[in-house]
Amino acid sequence: MSKYELVYHAGIPGRAEFVRLYLEATGTPYEDKALTEGQDCIKPYMSGEFEGSDKNPTPFAVPVLKDGDVVISQTPNILLYLATRISAPLDLEGGENNTERSTKKAKSSPASFNDPDTFHANALTLTILDLNNEVHDTHHPVSVMSYYEDQKEAAKQKADDVRKNRMPKFLANFEKNLAKSSSGFLLPSGPTYADLALFQLIDGLKFAFPARLKKLLPDYPKVEALYERVKKAPKIKAYLESDRRQKYSMGIFRYYEELDGEE
Amino acid sequence: MSKYELVYHAGIPGRAEFVRLYLEATGTPYEDKALTEGQDCIKPYMSGEFEGSDKNPTPFAVPVLKDGDVVISQTPNILLYLATRISAPLDLEGGENNTERSTKKAKSSPASFNDPDTFHANALTLTILDLNNEVHDTHHPVSVMSYYEDQKEAAKQKADDVRKNRMPKFLANFEKNLAKSSSGFLLPSGPTYADLALFQLIDGLKFAFPARLKKLLPDYPKVEALYERVKKAPKIKAYLESDRRQKYSMGIFRYYEELDGEE
Repeated sequence: MSKYELVYHAGIPGRAEFVRLYLEATGTPYEDKALTEGQDCIKPYMSGEFEGSDKNPTPFAVPVLKDGDVVISQTPNILLYLATRISAPLDLEGGENNTERSTKKAKSSPASFNDPDTFHANALTLTILDLNNEVHDTHHPVSVMSYYEDQKEAAKQKADDVRKNRMPKFLANFEKNLAKSSSGFLLPSGPTYADLALFQLIDGLKFAFPARLKKLLPDYPKVEALYERVKKAPKIKAYLESDRRQKYSMGIFRYYEELDGEE
Repeated sequence: MSKYELVYHAGIPGRAEFVRLYLEATGTPYEDKALTEGQDCIKPYMSGEFEGSDKNPTPFAVPVLKDGDVVISQTPNILLYLATRISAPLDLEGGENNTERSTKKAKSSPASFNDPDTFHANALTLTILDLNNEVHDTHHPVSVMSYYEDQKEAAKQKADDVRKNRMPKFLANFEKNLAKSSSGFLLPSGPTYADLALFQLIDGLKFAFPARLKKLLPDYPKVEALYERVKKAPKIKAYLESDRRQKYSMGIFRYYEELDGEE
């Protein structure tokens, strides 16, 4: 039995994907509960009836990570929790043919509260997830529980703003931080789960806004280079080619032609 | 000079308020830069030109906490950073006349990664801040940088959904967790900054949606009791009565009569 159990909706990468990528990139065994047991595995966590629940708050939403009796919710919180427990190095270098190999060795000890970089990785990830949330809102700007078809007018306005203003603003911040860092990763000290989160954000944006990203991404060459580097890292490449990587469909990143545009 | 410098827009409580309440409740000295130096104090952090910037990522937005050479951004991340460094107890008990005194002693050591409650407090706070963000979007559902007046139609739809569906869903989760906890606070082990965050969220909601909260809050008596308890805690009471507590105006919590309603 794997130490870590990941609980999330089956059938979409969704917010759990940020957690999966980190577990995969560090070679950490985990069980993806909805894929092995079905969608009902979520219910106990939402109702508060899960094992060991007296010591754990009832989560508001999935993803949830179960580590023995400890239950952790909220995507950035799960990532931080794992970072303080996983000692396997996060190797995001490409395969043998990669000529851009960084000289930075991947760290091989868990994150510590004494290290400011622990909080820098958390801040960067929170910012990446902020854009992830805004992208969700491009198709659901006024009501999470209503159909996209019932909020299309507001969705068009929201998507216009996210494409024109928000994407460049966030990408400029990521590019600036990559330019400040000598490692080729977001932090000078080497790769963190924030780099994986940025990979996943860009990957989702390329699916949901292909025309916009084709035009926009070349303006942020260091973001694009990081994306390509992570994609080719052996453990990530193997994961992306496996059936554990679920396809984009009706989750956060959706393709609606009418919401995309080059600007 | 105070150890901690807080950098945020002057004139609104905003997202920095969650940080201010924690600093005030623990009696931790801090300098609120925009109040002492003016609004321009933000600029270096956004441009990346701040002291010690080579070791710190450039923040995407304020609030920012400066602790010597260390610069920390993102509200929940600042709170977690402080929790790992502040050893002063978080005393949220009421004054002498409070008959509901908890038997739980306030902890007097910094948060540790070994303690799951460190991550539970973070998860609860992230959830509270999720609703805080949704409340912001009730007046700015389609574009952060455009005027409310230019997105009033979508704002009405968004506010309707937040009032009818989202507020009860979040409040039910907070109520459930308070009911599970024997301490009267969100965690059984005693008060954390998550309780302060919940206080601030409810306080803002009472300002922005007075009719809705008057109708809704009595359905969640433990949330209401926590709100009243925190409000009466001596350090919080003194802060709220001081001129350091800025008034709600054009920040996250705004009062637009047309967005409120009893349901």
